[in-house]
Amino acid sequence: MESAIKTIEIFPDCVRLIDQRKLPLNETYVDCRTYHEVADAIKTMVVRGAPAIGVTAAAGVALGVRQLNSEEDFSEQFDAICNTLAQTRPTAVNLFWAIACMRTCARQYQAAPLAERQDALTAEAQRLLAEDIQINRRIGAHGLSLVPDNSTILTHCNAGALATAGYGTALGVIRAAHFAGRHVQVLADETRPFLQGARLTTWELQRDHIPVTLITDNMAGYFMSRGRVDLVIVGADRIAANGDAANKIGTYSLAILAKEHDIPFYVAAPLSTIDRSLASGAEIPIEQRPGDEVRMVGSQRIAAPEVEVENPAFDVTPAHYLRGIITEAGTAMPPSRASIAGLFA
Amino acid sequence: MESAIKTIEIFPDCVRLIDQRKLPLNETYVDCRTYHEVADAIKTMVVRGAPAIGVTAAAGVALGVRQLNSEEDFSEQFDAICNTLAQTRPTAVNLFWAIACMRTCARQYQAAPLAERQDALTAEAQRLLAEDIQINRRIGAHGLSLVPDNSTILTHCNAGALATAGYGTALGVIRAAHFAGRHVQVLADETRPFLQGARLTTWELQRDHIPVTLITDNMAGYFMSRGRVDLVIVGADRIAANGDAANKIGTYSLAILAKEHDIPFYVAAPLSTIDRSLASGAEIPIEQRPGDEVRMVGSQRIAAPEVEVENPAFDVTPAHYLRGIITEAGTAMPPSRASIAGLFA
Repeated sequence: MESAIKTIEIFPDCVRLIDQRKLPLNETYVDCRTYHEVADAIKTMVVRGAPAIGVTAAAGVALGVRQLNSEEDFSEQFDAICNTLAQTRPTAVNLFWAIACMRTCARQYQAAPLAERQDALTAEAQRLLAEDIQINRRIGAHGLSLVPDNSTILTHCNAGALATAGYGTALGVIRAAHFAGRHVQVLADETRPFLQGARLTTWELQRDHIPVTLITDNMAGYFMSRGRVDLVIVGADRIAANGDAANKIGTYSLAILAKEHDIPFYVAAPLSTIDRSLASGAEIPIEQRPGDEVRMVGSQRIAAPEVEVENPAFDVTPAHYLRGIITEAGTAMPPSRASIAGLFA
Repeated sequence: MESAIKTIEIFPDCVRLIDQRKLPLNETYVDCRTYHEVADAIKTMVVRGAPAIGVTAAAGVALGVRQLNSEEDFSEQFDAICNTLAQTRPTAVNLFWAIACMRTCARQYQAAPLAERQDALTAEAQRLLAEDIQINRRIGAHGLSLVPDNSTILTHCNAGALATAGYGTALGVIRAAHFAGRHVQVLADETRPFLQGARLTTWELQRDHIPVTLITDNMAGYFMSRGRVDLVIVGADRIAANGDAANKIGTYSLAILAKEHDIPFYVAAPLSTIDRSLASGAEIPIEQRPGDEVRMVGSQRIAAPEVEVENPAFDVTPAHYLRGIITEAGTAMPPSRASIAGLFA
């Protein structure tokens, strides 16, 4: 049984988040008591990972509505709350999807008294949280057949329990294989600049006693060339209708390396990550983050403050590099407009 | 005119090295007063970069011989000095090449009195230092025709003045283009784990007012896919007779990315980096360095101490990924056993 990681907890008056900026050295929690605090937590990456951001934003909406004292101007105030949370980060579509779920719920209860509406929205956020974990378990079950016994899986960033409400997407597939008794081991890219691989993936895999070896991002090709990588599984932040997938910066490079070495490359993500309104990955907005994330590592400066930096947080991997997209509704393999549409049928 | 960087200074009783572990935050110098101190400085990366290591080792040999008080057992003591310096790092062949130069010099002076032999060896180390700078200027002159005006050049690690006695190999080509009036700009990979790109390449290019933008290693593919990279130039630590080139970990991945985007990929290195005794890159020994270089960034811990790590310091790029190898004797283009042999003709 895997160890429980409480990435997000939703209470009526508080959204509790494990502080992912401080892991693995400190396991501390941030209690957000207003929706503005929730928005800040998403912006500053207390919480990150597309599904986790979605659930957190939903919880932020519920928290914001809980603090309304009257029904007057409800819809304006509700819009303001939703808009604040929607403006936190641009790339992960789960954020907008989760807020849309909250809007639907609010509409369903629009005739109800405020207190009932507030309870319904808190319950909806809690439902999204619980559902996300169940979705990830189904992703794991679908991905299981793609993971041979005695295999080494390379992953990038953290698409684990910490990137979701629990269990994980890419790491969910690895967990499913591990707890099904397969001997799997993980090569974890450290994932500069935020170091989600070094700090988060190693931490959560070690808690579950899944063997993991940390490498720097630029070592992946070396290990592939030596036959030390059997498959690659990563998460995604937004997938277009044609299967092009945005994920943490560096994913695109890994996909090219995997192709050159004829290594299967999979994306694991819930259907809520698929943005069918976008024809291709060219339409996915790529967040550009502050330069000091590159110039610094934690409190350690590694380049002069005046050095010019670019810091795109994501890149887009064209669908033709992907062997399959593993979802809770099955695997689109190979990914295409048709196979992806089939997941929604 | 480029600013002078004193990577290595050779005095009769001292080898002075700029401390590359502390740049760019502190510009300090380490004075090595015994050959053991020189060996430690190479091992601990006070100085790094294949040509710089070679010149430093030669200076260490001269320093060791200078401290012999009698001619008794000269050849045993000379061997001990050379062996200590040869055992500092395994991959860069310039180290062994420079020590061989010192052995040749010692043989030439074997009938001379000790003081004369000591002076000759110090002069030989100083000659190797001056020659390395001249070689790099010739590499720059040969590489110039490969750098179009208004181009963006991606480089990895630091193959600059700090990696050599001065001027640089890959950065020497870029310097040559810049000082010839071409508009060039550089994308510098930060180059984990030791961050030579973030710390050293940005520092030395900024001193020469060459525009440079720092990126993390995993961003190279993103910029290539957006047409933002015109060519790649890197250095090398050892090149086999067939053109396979060992260089800083991550170079191999970059070469694959360049191929996928049809971007020319060049290696710039002196002939002393070519090890004609090795038929292919498979024979090049790859140094494995301590895991804490990956678990830590400076004094900042980024992963738990018990996390398993691999830390290969170099990888080998097969010759067929290289458009050319730029040397002081011309460019082997494309690199092959024949074109490389031609450089020595």
